[in-house]
Amino acid sequence: MYRVDLNSDLGESFGAYTIGNDQDVLQYVSSANIACGFHAGDPNVMQKTVALAAAKGVAIGAHPGVPDLMGFGRRKMAITPQDAYAMVMYQVGALQAFTTAAHVPLQHVKPHGALYNMAAKDKALAAAIAKAVCDVNPKLILYGLAGSYLITEGNKAGLTTASEVFADRTYQPDGSLTPRSQADAMVTNEEKAISRVLRMIQEGVVTAQNGQDIPVKADTICIHGDGAKALAFAHRIKTALETHDVAVRSFQ
Amino acid sequence: MYRVDLNSDLGESFGAYTIGNDQDVLQYVSSANIACGFHAGDPNVMQKTVALAAAKGVAIGAHPGVPDLMGFGRRKMAITPQDAYAMVMYQVGALQAFTTAAHVPLQHVKPHGALYNMAAKDKALAAAIAKAVCDVNPKLILYGLAGSYLITEGNKAGLTTASEVFADRTYQPDGSLTPRSQADAMVTNEEKAISRVLRMIQEGVVTAQNGQDIPVKADTICIHGDGAKALAFAHRIKTALETHDVAVRSFQ
Amino acid sequence: MYRVDLNSDLGESFGAYTIGNDQDVLQYVSSANIACGFHAGDPNVMQKTVALAAAKGVAIGAHPGVPDLMGFGRRKMAITPQDAYAMVMYQVGALQAFTTAAHVPLQHVKPHGALYNMAAKDKALAAAIAKAVCDVNPKLILYGLAGSYLITEGNKAGLTTASEVFADRTYQPDGSLTPRSQADAMVTNEEKAISRVLRMIQEGVVTAQNGQDIPVKADTICIHGDGAKALAFAHRIKTALETHDVAVRSFQ
Amino acid sequence: MYRVDLNSDLGESFGAYTIGNDQDVLQYVSSANIACGFHAGDPNVMQKTVALAAAKGVAIGAHPGVPDLMGFGRRKMAITPQDAYAMVMYQVGALQAFTTAAHVPLQHVKPHGALYNMAAKDKALAAAIAKAVCDVNPKLILYGLAGSYLITEGNKAGLTTASEVFADRTYQPDGSLTPRSQADAMVTNEEKAISRVLRMIQEGVVTAQNGQDIPVKADTICIHGDGAKALAFAHRIKTALETHDVAVRSFQ
Repeated sequence: MYRVDLNSDLGESFGAYTIGNDQDVLQYVSSANIACGFHAGDPNVMQKTVALAAAKGVAIGAHPGVPDLMGFGRRKMAITPQDAYAMVMYQVGALQAFTTAAHVPLQHVKPHGALYNMAAKDKALAAAIAKAVCDVNPKLILYGLAGSYLITEGNKAGLTTASEVFADRTYQPDGSLTPRSQADAMVTNEEKAISRVLRMIQEGVVTAQNGQDIPVKADTICIHGDGAKALAFAHRIKTALETHDVAVRSFQ
Repeated sequence: MYRVDLNSDLGESFGAYTIGNDQDVLQYVSSANIACGFHAGDPNVMQKTVALAAAKGVAIGAHPGVPDLMGFGRRKMAITPQDAYAMVMYQVGALQAFTTAAHVPLQHVKPHGALYNMAAKDKALAAAIAKAVCDVNPKLILYGLAGSYLITEGNKAGLTTASEVFADRTYQPDGSLTPRSQADAMVTNEEKAISRVLRMIQEGVVTAQNGQDIPVKADTICIHGDGAKALAFAHRIKTALETHDVAVRSFQ
Repeated sequence: MYRVDLNSDLGESFGAYTIGNDQDVLQYVSSANIACGFHAGDPNVMQKTVALAAAKGVAIGAHPGVPDLMGFGRRKMAITPQDAYAMVMYQVGALQAFTTAAHVPLQHVKPHGALYNMAAKDKALAAAIAKAVCDVNPKLILYGLAGSYLITEGNKAGLTTASEVFADRTYQPDGSLTPRSQADAMVTNEEKAISRVLRMIQEGVVTAQNGQDIPVKADTICIHGDGAKALAFAHRIKTALETHDVAVRSFQ
Repeated sequence: MYRVDLNSDLGESFGAYTIGNDQDVLQYVSSANIACGFHAGDPNVMQKTVALAAAKGVAIGAHPGVPDLMGFGRRKMAITPQDAYAMVMYQVGALQAFTTAAHVPLQHVKPHGALYNMAAKDKALAAAIAKAVCDVNPKLILYGLAGSYLITEGNKAGLTTASEVFADRTYQPDGSLTPRSQADAMVTNEEKAISRVLRMIQEGVVTAQNGQDIPVKADTICIHGDGAKALAFAHRIKTALETHDVAVRSFQ
């Protein structure tokens, strides 16, 4: 029997501001990436989100980002590897205090937004993030884009890694995601998205944009929870996976 | 033989901004309170300051504050006990990541500025802070103003506490500090400041402003490190303590 | 014929975070208080909100707050009058750049949340805010709680002021609002709220909680726009005012 | 007789943090670029710095940056032209409130750090900044790197521009600055730096790194004020300019 992890970004509210349907999306995922206060989230939100995830038995991960609340951590910033090391250390430690208090383990770390995308392509940045995770707790699993530097540098640092794939994105022959700026970046047909995901999990391949089948490792799939449509798709993909004998499970 | 801890606020620089003479003051203190990013400090500064203190064998504590960098955490803010709980949890966790990475223990937590002053007089706030410290790590020592709610609520929560006294401040008959707004708030004569401290440690009393001797517990003394005069006094008080058979030691 | 201004807090979104139904509430109000980036709002949001208000012909005011995004500017902070002066100056100037660019006048300044509440009761703070408004542009109208220091200090500084009343709040015999912590703080019956507002405008009195009629000046009424119920009430009060020959108009 | 403007970045302190020797450097410059709160500066500092510059008769400009206090505005951020437009508008407006209150004119706008460097090479960003300046006040002068998009787009927008040169940097044959990452980026010999500046002003040429003389427009020279050495050089360059019949004057 096959297995895969479904993860989603949670705890992105801040003060009086609410984003996401954390309660709803927790029904479908096995792992939650919880924002740590730099790009989203605040201490009260972190505490509440850890409690919500723990109550549902969903595994918890830290979701550190760049210090850019106004840009929701999506704008690339020219930070140094040292900056990345210390920022990740800080944010993972902060979240870990809440999991400790809630008597649940911290399972993983998944960099957010620009930090995730920059580290995927920047070896030194990826290595710095991997070292930070390792130095806080070497048992933490590092989530990263399948085939990216986050995975290779994470492994080099001795961490267990989880290769992430996207149900709604197309791939280039070299295994990278088609940039969103291109017209064919998204898989909009849900039926097709699900069959692609099943092939990634069961056969370890995906059809790239040139028609060629390329290898891909699919340990975890990113699920979005914002909006009714996203939630419906989360439900659909979870059901489809289970129907096809793919167990949806975290790494705990 | 008597003993006392000398503590100082460190790691208060931020980005391109430098405050304090951390290197110098580390020569005189046994414990360092390291800022955690809310009122001062940033992840790079925290990493560097932990390394500095560890290299000198100085015990490390978290120094959480209110989220007010512009006011350096000195302006009272009407936060709720829940806010205080989550803020302290977050900041202590963040600093603990750096001590973990540096393979040194975290010894204590000392609230900063307005958080310290508000909690000293607000039972619910003090209880929330004590619970946060307890929930992150019940072995941490809570520093607070001698005789204040931080001490009583810390003890109630089962924490070890350290009662803090001030060499340069005068006391009221009820054991509280004379408010800085009053003309007689400060002890400006260094000789007198040192003999008062020695009495607090060796006899457990201090002479209040009405001339009466009142009991005071002196586990730790706050030392300032900003400016040549403060450093000279730090050196002087440390020497005086040792001359009078008071060992300067952290609680580790 | 009587007249009154209806004002509402707008432009409180921030980055990826959305709060309020600005488009909807603009149908009912004559003046918009636009957040200036300290407690809510960001430069993009300010630009967009000024454009929205200008398009509807709604008069624009600056809505400066304390620097506490996490607390939405609602937590009291112990700022000095000098702090308040410079903070208000900064925020009013920032918003004024957007009204200048949009070729619409800036009509007024209404302090937000904790700044409004603190200044209502603190003469020095109110005077500092009034001076800041005056120094940026003496033609700006200062909005403040009817009978509070914001009104008296604003008038002393030579500013035109607008006394604000609340449809959904009860009053004490001294003219102050019943604190929200008390059970009878709110007027929950909409019918009653509207008849109270009409009396305030047409007779200049309101019945205090001890049953006594007390004088109150009602130049402007604060309307909330968050949620369907608030919008329905905004519509209802506007209609009721017009039905009773009270013109709803800004001060321009 | 020739003339040139000497400008320096001022008002970069923040809260309890002090950077720079504003009092000292004001002796040597004709124009002050005052930080506006995003990368440095706060409302109290802005008010004080405007007063200092006004008292010395030094012309005042706004020095807007990216919202990155931790990185002092030096880290490139992937902001959009719309972001840049609104950020510059906000910050220029904020500073203008203080110059209005001090009864002195706002002379210019000089983007700071990463914003300056990104806009120099990014036409759309430069155009957005120029439009923001124009929309706040079309009489403001836009400072930018000589030969960069800030100058060309500023002129296109109808603004007066001031071409900035650097005494301590070497130039490439295409007129760009030699990147700091290269060994020969800096002119370390002060004698040589001064004679290069004199040629730029009097002959409109500078010798590029390949030995070739290239044209350069030198309306204003950036002077640093941090540290005794920088201040000594500021004094030296001002004296040298005056000795060689180059008047040091702002554009007012």
